[in-house]
Amino acid sequence: MLASYFRKPQRLVVGLMSGTSLDGVDAAIVRIEGQGLDTKVELVHYTAVPYDDTLREKLKELCSLDRSNVAMVCGMNFYLGSIFAEAVRLAAAESGLPMDEIDLVSSHGQTVWHIPEADPSEWHQVRSTLQIGDLSVIAKLTGKPVVGDYRTADMAVGGQGAPLVPYADFILFRHADKGRIAQNIGGIGNCTAIPAGGLPEDVIAFDTGPGNMLIDEAVYQLSGGTKSYDDGGAWAAQGRANDSLVDRMLSHPYFALKPVKTTGREMFGKPYAAEWIGEARRLGLADADIVATFTAFTARSIAAGYRDFVFPACRADEVIVSGGGAHNRTLLRTLAGLLPEQRVLTSDAFGISGDAKEAIAFALFANNFLYGIPNQLPSATGASRPTVMGKLALPE
Amino acid sequence: MLASYFRKPQRLVVGLMSGTSLDGVDAAIVRIEGQGLDTKVELVHYTAVPYDDTLREKLKELCSLDRSNVAMVCGMNFYLGSIFAEAVRLAAAESGLPMDEIDLVSSHGQTVWHIPEADPSEWHQVRSTLQIGDLSVIAKLTGKPVVGDYRTADMAVGGQGAPLVPYADFILFRHADKGRIAQNIGGIGNCTAIPAGGLPEDVIAFDTGPGNMLIDEAVYQLSGGTKSYDDGGAWAAQGRANDSLVDRMLSHPYFALKPVKTTGREMFGKPYAAEWIGEARRLGLADADIVATFTAFTARSIAAGYRDFVFPACRADEVIVSGGGAHNRTLLRTLAGLLPEQRVLTSDAFGISGDAKEAIAFALFANNFLYGIPNQLPSATGASRPTVMGKLALPE
Repeated sequence: MLASYFRKPQRLVVGLMSGTSLDGVDAAIVRIEGQGLDTKVELVHYTAVPYDDTLREKLKELCSLDRSNVAMVCGMNFYLGSIFAEAVRLAAAESGLPMDEIDLVSSHGQTVWHIPEADPSEWHQVRSTLQIGDLSVIAKLTGKPVVGDYRTADMAVGGQGAPLVPYADFILFRHADKGRIAQNIGGIGNCTAIPAGGLPEDVIAFDTGPGNMLIDEAVYQLSGGTKSYDDGGAWAAQGRANDSLVDRMLSHPYFALKPVKTTGREMFGKPYAAEWIGEARRLGLADADIVATFTAFTARSIAAGYRDFVFPACRADEVIVSGGGAHNRTLLRTLAGLLPEQRVLTSDAFGISGDAKEAIAFALFANNFLYGIPNQLPSATGASRPTVMGKLALPE
Repeated sequence: MLASYFRKPQRLVVGLMSGTSLDGVDAAIVRIEGQGLDTKVELVHYTAVPYDDTLREKLKELCSLDRSNVAMVCGMNFYLGSIFAEAVRLAAAESGLPMDEIDLVSSHGQTVWHIPEADPSEWHQVRSTLQIGDLSVIAKLTGKPVVGDYRTADMAVGGQGAPLVPYADFILFRHADKGRIAQNIGGIGNCTAIPAGGLPEDVIAFDTGPGNMLIDEAVYQLSGGTKSYDDGGAWAAQGRANDSLVDRMLSHPYFALKPVKTTGREMFGKPYAAEWIGEARRLGLADADIVATFTAFTARSIAAGYRDFVFPACRADEVIVSGGGAHNRTLLRTLAGLLPEQRVLTSDAFGISGDAKEAIAFALFANNFLYGIPNQLPSATGASRPTVMGKLALPE
């Protein structure tokens, strides 16, 4: 099976990543050499394909307990498969590469539900996670083998199914003499701390809390739905953060939890944002102050995570930021101010586009899958063992 | 990947089938030699693992539009994965085979929704189908590679995602000199007609109409809920079929539809049974006469399907019955009476247990998947081309 893949010294893999922010799908075309810890990757092309407004609304419906049903999961699983296939074709067309040269596709899938801890009152709602965008649909529509739907495998061996990117961070950023923290700021923030000269089992990784999720939701509500994010952090820069409100927000019990820990929209979604916007308004904060406060909260929650769970165990020389939040200059400036002993950089400085990093990571996972090599870090997910995540669908 | 599988001349594959009747999961351990059209299969062990009542009720909830939600799909996908893994272990234990000797698992998954035709008023509810029971969960819990979730691939290339068993029927029953019809009688009846010396594209396959569904429902209602099926056809044997009522039942428009065609509980479920029981009672039929009438109707609908859509194109010498209906002697006797030119046999006479046939078919599909060989018949599903259905998850 897939004999031609293994004969090639280098392969072109398209990694697809669609985050919990529901804003669209990222596609990275990656040239991959080797496998496992010896993988070498080079980004060939990156593109972000936004979901249209109708799709985003339908996905929000699907992600809600009271508006979703089994028929919506069934239909949307197929529909998103076709959207993901289209993203592969678009990335290839933009890059000028003929589809013939693409060897493999990797798809994270759209997370629509995530239950990292079971609710004992609902016996059948066991620890579980659900990513949709059918792999066979992608494979048949692109004509490429597709590996994807990774998180369930980690959960099946006792992990939280997240975070997954630390395995890729370890391969991309490990350094013999420098301690590094790779910080992704997507909907949720997550960090991967890699001690200087460390082994995979030395990695400390966890979700730091909301990334852009809270800021985005505030911007959306405060702009009356006309803006979906704070472009460059400009709105936050016009306001002043209310520090005592930030202190109160930081008392959320998630931040005191020890890693391994993951979080999501269930914890820091719309109701959470609405609650704190309401509180800020009661205090008389202007809109820009609210955005500034949420931005400061996000930066401080990240720095607090390092202080409590990384620095006691691991010296860090550099913080390497990726994800949409890397474009928020107010957020980055605030974070840098909170970390005087670290250099705060973006992953672009390392030749790894910060926007593309997650998609690149998934490309790497698919390559490992085909070699039967684990593509996750138990130190990050809490799994009982390293495991090969993913499922393979064939184009034939 | 999976190098040891390909080195073995014979492999032990466990096929898992869980039908729309929600009664449980069938597990067949099959010894497989070869691949594609040259596959040879031998049933080693078969077991039926019933779902418990709570699970069945939860699944009914999950299969309903107004009581399901995304969290239930998420949780049940994992829960069923563990139930399926348990069925593999149970089948191995019963057979006396150590788990070490099992090479591969194949899982159909539990169908919880199926949209063979799109509803234009719901743009995102595209043609789609949803089978749950996560493949990675099964793989990690059994320690075996798992192939499954087949139907989506057929639908992605334009098929109805059903029926899938005709591909296996072709391999199991094709004959150089004899025309054969493989007739499965489960909840729904379906036939696969294979002309003598025919090619895959010569196969005619379709759902003949209700199989046991109508008889079971009548028995359940007429027995006041104390019986769920007519054991051996004994009740029907005590009554007399009302032929003019059967004639009227056969005027249902489904029977006039040309293949490719599929049907289900939506068309021939509880309301349909209730309507005709009511009509029979108005005519003064005794309970045994009603069961006899429904049994005769089922046999005549099958024979009429052959007369209208099979015999004009294909001579048939033998009809090979499988599924629960093969145990209904009254049904088989009636069918044999309607087909004077055919021998009506059960698949057990061919070494293929009629109860296990579907699970055996899925074992065979997984073996094909690993060889990258199509495991479906476009002539049965209406797909635009033969395709490799399924997804692979690894145990490592």
